[in-house]
Amino acid sequence: MTDIAQLQTPALLVDEQMLADNLRTMADALPGRRLRPHVKAHKSTALARRQAELGHDAFTCATIREVEGMAAAGLGADLLLANEVLDMTRLAAVAARGARVTVAVDSAATVDAATRAGLREVVVDVNVGLPRCGCAPEDAGRLADLARSKGLDVRGVMGYEGHAMVIPDLDERRKTVDECMARLRVAHEAVGGDVVSAGGTGTYAINTWPNEIQAGSYALMDTAYAALPDLPFAQALTVLGTVISTTAPAGGIPGWAVVDVGLKSLGMDHGNPAIPGGTVWFCSDEHTTWQPDVFDDVRLGDRVRVLPAHVDPTIALHERMHVVSGDDVIDVLPVDLRGW
Amino acid sequence: MTDIAQLQTPALLVDEQMLADNLRTMADALPGRRLRPHVKAHKSTALARRQAELGHDAFTCATIREVEGMAAAGLGADLLLANEVLDMTRLAAVAARGARVTVAVDSAATVDAATRAGLREVVVDVNVGLPRCGCAPEDAGRLADLARSKGLDVRGVMGYEGHAMVIPDLDERRKTVDECMARLRVAHEAVGGDVVSAGGTGTYAINTWPNEIQAGSYALMDTAYAALPDLPFAQALTVLGTVISTTAPAGGIPGWAVVDVGLKSLGMDHGNPAIPGGTVWFCSDEHTTWQPDVFDDVRLGDRVRVLPAHVDPTIALHERMHVVSGDDVIDVLPVDLRGW
Repeated sequence: MTDIAQLQTPALLVDEQMLADNLRTMADALPGRRLRPHVKAHKSTALARRQAELGHDAFTCATIREVEGMAAAGLGADLLLANEVLDMTRLAAVAARGARVTVAVDSAATVDAATRAGLREVVVDVNVGLPRCGCAPEDAGRLADLARSKGLDVRGVMGYEGHAMVIPDLDERRKTVDECMARLRVAHEAVGGDVVSAGGTGTYAINTWPNEIQAGSYALMDTAYAALPDLPFAQALTVLGTVISTTAPAGGIPGWAVVDVGLKSLGMDHGNPAIPGGTVWFCSDEHTTWQPDVFDDVRLGDRVRVLPAHVDPTIALHERMHVVSGDDVIDVLPVDLRGW
Repeated sequence: MTDIAQLQTPALLVDEQMLADNLRTMADALPGRRLRPHVKAHKSTALARRQAELGHDAFTCATIREVEGMAAAGLGADLLLANEVLDMTRLAAVAARGARVTVAVDSAATVDAATRAGLREVVVDVNVGLPRCGCAPEDAGRLADLARSKGLDVRGVMGYEGHAMVIPDLDERRKTVDECMARLRVAHEAVGGDVVSAGGTGTYAINTWPNEIQAGSYALMDTAYAALPDLPFAQALTVLGTVISTTAPAGGIPGWAVVDVGLKSLGMDHGNPAIPGGTVWFCSDEHTTWQPDVFDDVRLGDRVRVLPAHVDPTIALHERMHVVSGDDVIDVLPVDLRGW
């Protein structure tokens, strides 16, 4: 068995017990197809397989590569590309090989793209309040009619209330979710279909109207979601680093340490990572400079677990995750869904 | 010949003329070994080869993988790992295969690591003011003595004035550089050796005392460095995206567009990217939502060149760069030095 001391750093670590607990907690709350796990969070077919083994065999994807990889791994029972694409050639090829592929459409151009490529199933993507993709709720019915007139099967609607995900106050978050779902309801009444897809880790427990939730981050978590006190998921993902340099306190300047986990191994869009027992000063390409609470407790060569602020883009920078129990590496999950 | 319209987006584009001009401008300013190009900026042996063809055959690396890849590509005439490493086994293996490998040391532990692994050449890394790696200037001589007593060849000193790089005012920047180099001078007087290595793109023209400059970003540039009016380098790297969704102005809210270039294809540590002719609102994993100056000028399917705020971590997210002349793809540069 490998010990983490033998790993080349930086390296992603996933705590097995936390991962198992997170997956189980969500499977209990949203069993089977009530959850459509979003693979963009972990980009790993091996981790998706564990979600499927717990009963969730329909998945959400953000990129064509994710759809292709999931289908190639035998996890293509029901793949939703919850994103707009204007060249669906590769998606149609995946569907032709037997996977079920559904794509989001929010415009006549995306409906045309599906028709042209020969893809058969779509959902209407509705703007529920986040200024990004999605048609206006009042346009959803017209778009569904257009799609059906072209021979497409319109399975239903989706709408992502992304701006609600990390609202700290639970009542405020619920209020925003309700406003968003009122818009999605208007769209669904006009569109019809069996699929009403929405939500994410921050709203999985309070967004009860859709019949499937697209949560992904719950499996591994990050400091942004961990700041929400109501979420029952543990921060299972860390980036293991090695202390490569220390500078002792001198002349009134506190001592600092440098770990070889930098902004090329961390998603930085939510800001700096955290290091328990210390204060992060700043990140460079291959370094994080931090001030240990007790300088003398840190030694050159020490292994440090750095907590990334945002899990999804952190994982996208790595080739694999090491599943650990304590300091033992018990499994390796290839991050095989990167790229586009 | 491929047109960029045929590329899967997001995709890195490098403007051939700008790249050639940037490389030539720097080679004229710092010919041959006066420049030790930093490969961390582009992580591409193909691009490094172009730098070598212009006369720079000594390179700076930030990771073991970069050293291994450069040596394997036949670019191992003089590789400096400008970073501390505590397990140098892989570096020693590269050196044993014939490449010249020098590593930075800033502690007895890193000297021991070099000795233990059988690596022969080091430079003393000196803290010149950026709180990161490097020993204090007054400790450099003692560390060099220790290294020599263990049979290591101490080639000289290095010190990176990273905190000076993007000081907007040139006089202020020069003042900080001079303070830093005064520290490096103290260290070099005690250490000796032929190598005095420092600097970067922001200080290449004003840091005249070292005998080699470790600039990397100059080849491709980014919006952070482009904000310095004194630098003669053009922003050659963009991320090509496709407009996948638009929402027309309504109810006093301006119209917006969404391009499929998100925070998983952009280094985000320096903030949001820029889109000429528009204002970026925010980035999601696979999207940038932005407001075009003239909404009606933007159509679904349009190709948009997004300017990343920080080039190094942007490239690290991609598998290849497409060299373009206008809209023609004339070459592909694999990003083959990623990972650790």
